[in-house]
Amino acid sequence: MENFAIVIHGGAGTILRDSMSPELEKQYKAKLSESVKAGYDILSKGGTALDAVAASIKVLEDSPLFNAGKGSVFNHEGKNEMDASIMDGKTLMAGAVAGARAIRNPIDGARVVMEKSPHVMFSGEGADTFAREQGLKMEEPAYFYDEKRWQQLQQIKDQEKITLDHSSGTPGWVHPKDAEFLHAPDDSIGAGKKFGTVGCAALDKKGNLAAGTSTGGMTNKKWGRVGDSPIIGSGTYANNKTCAVSCTGHGEYFIRNVVAYDVSALMEYKGMTLEQATHEVVMNKLKPQGGEGGLIAIDTKGNIAMPFNTAGMYRACMNKDGKSEVKIYKE
Amino acid sequence: MENFAIVIHGGAGTILRDSMSPELEKQYKAKLSESVKAGYDILSKGGTALDAVAASIKVLEDSPLFNAGKGSVFNHEGKNEMDASIMDGKTLMAGAVAGARAIRNPIDGARVVMEKSPHVMFSGEGADTFAREQGLKMEEPAYFYDEKRWQQLQQIKDQEKITLDHSSGTPGWVHPKDAEFLHAPDDSIGAGKKFGTVGCAALDKKGNLAAGTSTGGMTNKKWGRVGDSPIIGSGTYANNKTCAVSCTGHGEYFIRNVVAYDVSALMEYKGMTLEQATHEVVMNKLKPQGGEGGLIAIDTKGNIAMPFNTAGMYRACMNKDGKSEVKIYKE
Repeated sequence: MENFAIVIHGGAGTILRDSMSPELEKQYKAKLSESVKAGYDILSKGGTALDAVAASIKVLEDSPLFNAGKGSVFNHEGKNEMDASIMDGKTLMAGAVAGARAIRNPIDGARVVMEKSPHVMFSGEGADTFAREQGLKMEEPAYFYDEKRWQQLQQIKDQEKITLDHSSGTPGWVHPKDAEFLHAPDDSIGAGKKFGTVGCAALDKKGNLAAGTSTGGMTNKKWGRVGDSPIIGSGTYANNKTCAVSCTGHGEYFIRNVVAYDVSALMEYKGMTLEQATHEVVMNKLKPQGGEGGLIAIDTKGNIAMPFNTAGMYRACMNKDGKSEVKIYKE
Repeated sequence: MENFAIVIHGGAGTILRDSMSPELEKQYKAKLSESVKAGYDILSKGGTALDAVAASIKVLEDSPLFNAGKGSVFNHEGKNEMDASIMDGKTLMAGAVAGARAIRNPIDGARVVMEKSPHVMFSGEGADTFAREQGLKMEEPAYFYDEKRWQQLQQIKDQEKITLDHSSGTPGWVHPKDAEFLHAPDDSIGAGKKFGTVGCAALDKKGNLAAGTSTGGMTNKKWGRVGDSPIIGSGTYANNKTCAVSCTGHGEYFIRNVVAYDVSALMEYKGMTLEQATHEVVMNKLKPQGGEGGLIAIDTKGNIAMPFNTAGMYRACMNKDGKSEVKIYKE
């Protein structure tokens, strides 16, 4: 039987068992199972890793439990700005959208950039325009709206006012030490600081790898901030020589450390295993810098790694035998 | 005497001696000399690599000879959209702007993102807004306007009409095989296909490395296309462990190959020299894929590499003894 496998994440952060209700935990696990199964079903029928990655991510984008697609967080102006990227390990082709506002499934937006344009990355209105021209399903702001996300924005704006009253900052300016606090709680459905992003990496029966990532970004985001999710090499990378990777975490650290490609480079150039390379990047490089987060990765043999240096990471995986794992906390 | 050195580029492409007038060649060489000298003077007085990189790039941004800052090419809507990034090899901090329209010197925009915000990348209007709030010099569209660039846009739009008349494409859609042709001639001052970008990498007396890149993008650019120039890891990378790199070329290939960081990874993980690593990436990886372009790089010992797989690359370097090279063609 040909080998294949799939792994997904739904964001990492301060996800604590004590602050999660049994009912909510059940909802998260059910949606993670549904997502990983959607990709698994495609792979088991001989479908491509790319199709599996897109299908799994769409399940998470369509759920308001996760900060991507429907239920994305709001930026400072009270709007949704979504980022996504996808990469094909066979061809090294890649696509990404940054700051999209109307594409129902941003991961599909990234995919049409890859498959239907000669470019890799489209941003802002242009990303929406291209997706519309390509016939993707578009939505009004009301579709993406989630009341809890809206309340999060109001809370953070209130906190920001308090912070500014006690600092010498100019209006709109937040000291870096405060910024993490102000931006971080992008998901108060559970509790604590979370980096809401979803992603998937898959190996298909033909031995091809693919990875994708999608996010609603940071609550109260300003200045058109772009994180690592739409950046090929940082948030997403796939190469049939080595592995496929999707990241979630404090995006700035993931960009500076070129995290997704670094896992591949450590495997290709230093001969590390997937387990060693992902551990090296998440625990030995990111963690000492304060770069909170995690990643999911899969190699050409179907080995899977899901390391994170935060309290928890929503994650699930499934191998060719249909054996699945769905986890939230450290174990 | 402490070691220091600096290297710059002004874009790579089909730059042929036959199609360049002696007068124009003189202008290019004079501006390249002025740029590399601006950074050299800072380094020789004990200034930082970051200051040198910014100063050298500003000279090129301020000249309409190069496709960055003043004299940037026009996008499909007849507007300038500029991208830039900068990275500090000592701290691994980085900053970038994508799609900025009003920052007089986009490299300064990238630098304030790095130094005055907790983020790495700002895009679109937000990038301009942040730069304005930080007190950077802003300009109206008239400042960036260059008549020759405007004529290039009109020519390409005419070509595009012809292409579409003979294809089954939907309006606004260009087949990938045509797109390179339609987008590529971003600089008809000389002749032929060019990738107009400017960049600099420097080593200062304290042993710190820095790199930066700035571009006006592609003529007739659509959908908010983002190339490699503002992408940390692809267009720009610096790390005191290894090297500082700035790229110029067909951006999509540079993103998919995570070019700037790959040079660093080959040095750190495979023990390659700067010469070996840059040759490997530009000649053995990019060229076989059709990824046209080049890069400049400097290592911690002040070694310099300026490989390119196109006919020419505007480039110059200067070492601690004040010895300089200013070149355009293959030699």
